[in-house]
Amino acid sequence: MNRVYNFSAGPSCLPEPVLKEAAAEMLDYNGTGQSVMEMSHRSKAYEPIIEKTEALVRKLMNVPENYKVLFLQGGASTQFAMIPMNLKKLGKAAYVDTGVWADKAIKEAKKYLTVDVLASSKDKGYSYIPAVKKIEGEYDYAYITLNNTIVGTKWHELPECGTRADGKRIPLVADASSCILSEPVDISKFGIFYAGAQKNLAPAGVTLVIIREDLIPDEPIPGTPTMLSYKIHADNGSMYNTPPCYTIYVMGKVLAWIEANGGAEGMKKRNQEKAALFYDYLDTSSFYRSPVEKGSRSLMNIPFVTRETDPDKAGALNKKFVAEAAAAGLVNLAGHRLVGGMRASIYNAMPIEGVKALIAFMNTFAKENA
Amino acid sequence: MNRVYNFSAGPSCLPEPVLKEAAAEMLDYNGTGQSVMEMSHRSKAYEPIIEKTEALVRKLMNVPENYKVLFLQGGASTQFAMIPMNLKKLGKAAYVDTGVWADKAIKEAKKYLTVDVLASSKDKGYSYIPAVKKIEGEYDYAYITLNNTIVGTKWHELPECGTRADGKRIPLVADASSCILSEPVDISKFGIFYAGAQKNLAPAGVTLVIIREDLIPDEPIPGTPTMLSYKIHADNGSMYNTPPCYTIYVMGKVLAWIEANGGAEGMKKRNQEKAALFYDYLDTSSFYRSPVEKGSRSLMNIPFVTRETDPDKAGALNKKFVAEAAAAGLVNLAGHRLVGGMRASIYNAMPIEGVKALIAFMNTFAKENA
Repeated sequence: MNRVYNFSAGPSCLPEPVLKEAAAEMLDYNGTGQSVMEMSHRSKAYEPIIEKTEALVRKLMNVPENYKVLFLQGGASTQFAMIPMNLKKLGKAAYVDTGVWADKAIKEAKKYLTVDVLASSKDKGYSYIPAVKKIEGEYDYAYITLNNTIVGTKWHELPECGTRADGKRIPLVADASSCILSEPVDISKFGIFYAGAQKNLAPAGVTLVIIREDLIPDEPIPGTPTMLSYKIHADNGSMYNTPPCYTIYVMGKVLAWIEANGGAEGMKKRNQEKAALFYDYLDTSSFYRSPVEKGSRSLMNIPFVTRETDPDKAGALNKKFVAEAAAAGLVNLAGHRLVGGMRASIYNAMPIEGVKALIAFMNTFAKENA
Repeated sequence: MNRVYNFSAGPSCLPEPVLKEAAAEMLDYNGTGQSVMEMSHRSKAYEPIIEKTEALVRKLMNVPENYKVLFLQGGASTQFAMIPMNLKKLGKAAYVDTGVWADKAIKEAKKYLTVDVLASSKDKGYSYIPAVKKIEGEYDYAYITLNNTIVGTKWHELPECGTRADGKRIPLVADASSCILSEPVDISKFGIFYAGAQKNLAPAGVTLVIIREDLIPDEPIPGTPTMLSYKIHADNGSMYNTPPCYTIYVMGKVLAWIEANGGAEGMKKRNQEKAALFYDYLDTSSFYRSPVEKGSRSLMNIPFVTRETDPDKAGALNKKFVAEAAAAGLVNLAGHRLVGGMRASIYNAMPIEGVKALIAFMNTFAKENA
């Protein structure tokens, strides 16, 4: 068996010890004589698994007691609707347009309320995070995409949320799908902090939603499907219907791996080391460059291009790069179809050896194609 | 490793060869150097997996060409909203109330359109399927729960759907979560045939929806979340956003196992044999009995009670039965919390040896407690 270095933007590589444990327990989890795949979600065998997973989320992210931790389905795309459907009272929300996923969230929210787009970095291909220091107004919430997977930017400083006429601070909602648990975050600064799991947490199929209890309405806007009501899931401990049990189990293993590797602080150190190595290489290369502004760069997703200026030649070079890298065991390095170029996603589970192997390959490729 | 016989109503037992293959491929699927859990859903490694799974669904269920096969999230509970949100035109639908899940579907549909409940078996604890020979009226659709997991009934004969004033036949919608692929079904008789996967198809986390193309609207009712639009998923081959890739992969393995065991016909033979054995035992027992009318009995879920008439004694006896059975490696035999008693769910993956072991245990228990 030859494992590759998988730079996929998601679903993406998982820690090898997690996969080994899952394989070993596949036919008999912990002496139950069952696979976790086969367990009734309401059984004494399964309950400790979801409970432990939630406890690890709370511990590793230091989740305050007045927040619910929910395991939902449907990915971030379902949250794009759930958030306005559940949080709408005043009828207006503030969004910042930092890329494709923020734009999708904006389009979906407009179905349910008035959206003020406070700023956008679309003018420069989303290559930076716009300056939004303070958000003020009669908003139900303010929404940001904390890390932008496709373009490789992240919010290094959170916008400050002002106080509304009702005396309440505007709750900040963050899509953290591609950066959750990559470094410590102060959850108390957020009203909702959520993530599709398939990058840093688990295989695809579960969405982690951390929501402050006072934001959960008894009645979402009329016409909201029961399954899109936060209250239903909060009141039923994510067991209103059958949750994606096995995916939650794997998430628990990933969280245990994070804990064993220093928790959120440990991940930050690990990720900063990898990212520094890679950005330093790009910034000093005469062959490659980063298209992202220095103050906005992601720790997780690092797009890069060659310095070739002829579009046809650049396109051919990119293709060659991606193919030869794959042949060398460095896979999924093509940039997103909307932006082109290359992209290395180096989530928590990517070891520094993978980044070193990539840089070594890039060096050779540069020499051969300069 | 001692595998148990798992009679859970869902999630439920999977074929052992499926689990063994999944375990063996966990760190390296087919020489890719990746787990399927780690694969980008848009990669050349993953695409053949979802394509093969769809092809097997089409082959094993003989799905006509003018039907889409969708892999969605959110379980049957999400379909309860999606169906009326997408099928509503005339504003009225017909439902038959055959149990808890039918009732939940009815309650959810009432948010979006007028519901005519044509018949109900609630009067006798849902212990039979009411006679509904023909459905006529200006209905967007007629809805049935093909197999009722909790009470153990199934439709042995489908109601006939009449023709509306617009000249179209009323489409029949069926929740087949607990009986899909347990026996052959003529899909062309249905407008939508859907199933949460966690009983006969896969681990929890994916919903299989088979829908006739002409029923997919360009625009669902206003306010429908994008993720709850059939058209979005149909137009994007279930890849509008990241699907539950690994769960779909396991479903593909379960379908291959069904194919290798005679397909839907093979499953019917296997299931009829198991069910006949068990019902015969119940019907000739002086200690146990089936609470379900003979003409309405499920092949998949078989509730049973003792003949003890004192409620307190009966309750104590049930508890004792479930505990002693579990100690003997026969697990998850408690009846649903809403109906009590016991229930053996004997889905496709349950071998006849499991049913025989259960009957042997029941015999001993009856002798010891008569």
